[in-house]
Amino acid sequence: MTTTLDAIHPVAYDGDAVILLDQRLLPGREEYLRCHTAADVAAGIRDMVVRGAPAIGITAAYGIALAAHRAPDAAAGFATAVEDAARIIGASRPTAVNLHWAIARMMGRFHAMAGAGADAIRAAFDAEARDIHDEDVAMNRAIGRHGAALIPDGATVLTHCNAGALATGGYGTALGVIRGAREAGKSVRIIACETRPYLQGARLTAWELVRDGFDVTLITDNAAGALMAKGLVTCCVVGADRITANGDTANKIGTYTHAVLATRHAIPFYVAAPSSTLDPTLPDGSFIPIEERSADEVLYLQGHRVAAEGVKVINPSFDVTPWSLITAIITERGVHRPGPLGYGFTRQP
Amino acid sequence: MTTTLDAIHPVAYDGDAVILLDQRLLPGREEYLRCHTAADVAAGIRDMVVRGAPAIGITAAYGIALAAHRAPDAAAGFATAVEDAARIIGASRPTAVNLHWAIARMMGRFHAMAGAGADAIRAAFDAEARDIHDEDVAMNRAIGRHGAALIPDGATVLTHCNAGALATGGYGTALGVIRGAREAGKSVRIIACETRPYLQGARLTAWELVRDGFDVTLITDNAAGALMAKGLVTCCVVGADRITANGDTANKIGTYTHAVLATRHAIPFYVAAPSSTLDPTLPDGSFIPIEERSADEVLYLQGHRVAAEGVKVINPSFDVTPWSLITAIITERGVHRPGPLGYGFTRQP
Repeated sequence: MTTTLDAIHPVAYDGDAVILLDQRLLPGREEYLRCHTAADVAAGIRDMVVRGAPAIGITAAYGIALAAHRAPDAAAGFATAVEDAARIIGASRPTAVNLHWAIARMMGRFHAMAGAGADAIRAAFDAEARDIHDEDVAMNRAIGRHGAALIPDGATVLTHCNAGALATGGYGTALGVIRGAREAGKSVRIIACETRPYLQGARLTAWELVRDGFDVTLITDNAAGALMAKGLVTCCVVGADRITANGDTANKIGTYTHAVLATRHAIPFYVAAPSSTLDPTLPDGSFIPIEERSADEVLYLQGHRVAAEGVKVINPSFDVTPWSLITAIITERGVHRPGPLGYGFTRQP
Repeated sequence: MTTTLDAIHPVAYDGDAVILLDQRLLPGREEYLRCHTAADVAAGIRDMVVRGAPAIGITAAYGIALAAHRAPDAAAGFATAVEDAARIIGASRPTAVNLHWAIARMMGRFHAMAGAGADAIRAAFDAEARDIHDEDVAMNRAIGRHGAALIPDGATVLTHCNAGALATGGYGTALGVIRGAREAGKSVRIIACETRPYLQGARLTAWELVRDGFDVTLITDNAAGALMAKGLVTCCVVGADRITANGDTANKIGTYTHAVLATRHAIPFYVAAPSSTLDPTLPDGSFIPIEERSADEVLYLQGHRVAAEGVKVINPSFDVTPWSLITAIITERGVHRPGPLGYGFTRQP
């Protein structure tokens, strides 16, 4: 039951830099990148040094705190530097709403301190960003406790992408549920889908779970259907990048496919996410902006071109799973089940 | 409308060797491997120098013809060599029934010639193998003509793996339908799923179709659901490795997932295969042996390990799509639609 979780710190901050575990190098190398400017932080998010909706939000908050430390003391210059940082970091990736949530929270703190001195605001930013980080870990642990009740002892849980310690403040949402189940004394095995094109499942989830002592089996995304058809999957648990008012959920490309397969096989399909992932301003998933990433993610493997010249590529990074395919959404507040109109996160915020 | 198809020869035979286009090297290099023994031929099939159920069948037939040329003239030694070749080649891969079909046809010819001289049998084998090859191309073209009627003008056709010229005698089953549609004057665009882990879609289908002047877009397998949900897919056409009496179809892993998604979106899902792919001896798909391939196909990309040490792997090479998800099966005989008990290939062989 002991874990080595304390050793996984995807995001840290020391007042001088935002320190990102470079997830592009995992599992081969464990290296940390020090970001000294808001532009560095934005590049770290855009280039996926750090990824995962909650971790992106935490990184953004630290990035604004960092920018305040680099800003001049004079009020006008200070405000410009902070606002520039918010804008630059806010434009780094479009789909995860936690990014905007964290920035809005930091800027709310900023605007509430109008007239305060630069050092007071810097201290407040540092505290606010650390709160966002600490609260994320606490929310993850609460998600884990709530979700654990949904996982039968002896379950085989299929997950997609990485919604683990690496994607969050340090415990995980989907993998937090799995950790919560183990901490509740249950035996759990995990099937990790490799998650093309970026292979977060193969590179990150497998690394994180093996390191944490779990029994984890890697499959291609293509094999999920065959395993479900054979009765080898007890339930699915995935994370989320944005959940709209009705419960429609944007998550890593391929999530929708797993949900359709799970529905066909009457396998429970759970989404685990902190409430910072909820976006009640959007009525349904059709309004979620879906990031299209570089064709090279599909055309090249390890720098080696795999497809013929002349082929086109469509490479959406996320898809939307409609609420009707989601058995329950697990947040730090509890286990939410859909009503006749969806999850009603607008009505019960 | 002109094509460069004549330039794609996945399998050839010159009496001295079975000559295989080394599909492991595509699209980067176009090299041919000369197989001089039955063991060479079996290794070529097992190692996926050649792949695709119809191409495997043709290769097996040529392999037996080749073994006969290498065999001693004396009747006992000749028979042993031929039977050994049939056994060795027959054990190379388990799922594609065309392999066994082709070997059975060659051995049927052999047994029908009991008492004939070695040279007469060699000549008969050469002729039989070339017939199998020529008939496959003719069946593919007939599949293309029948299937073309199912493809609307302006269609976007999603396909999985490679069921093209490279997988057959030289025209294609699923891609034969696409070629047939173009030859019928229709405009067709293709979405090729990359087909993890072996990337036949990225490496082979994209290469073959770009070379043949088609408009082809490569996606990860994960993106198929999102594209269907957006209404971007007109229909799906895939090949088959084995079709049982009721119409259940084994094909490349991930095919089942596409069929489930297509059904959800009311998108027609077609299987295209020559009648040599039918196995009426098996009542349904649960009897089809599914090849499990090496974990390394999932753990390594371009020789580079991508997943942590300690992770397990399940890597089935095929899955089974139940007949009820298949809109029609297209063979050289025509377009078969399911009845209340499936396709009834036992009743109408």
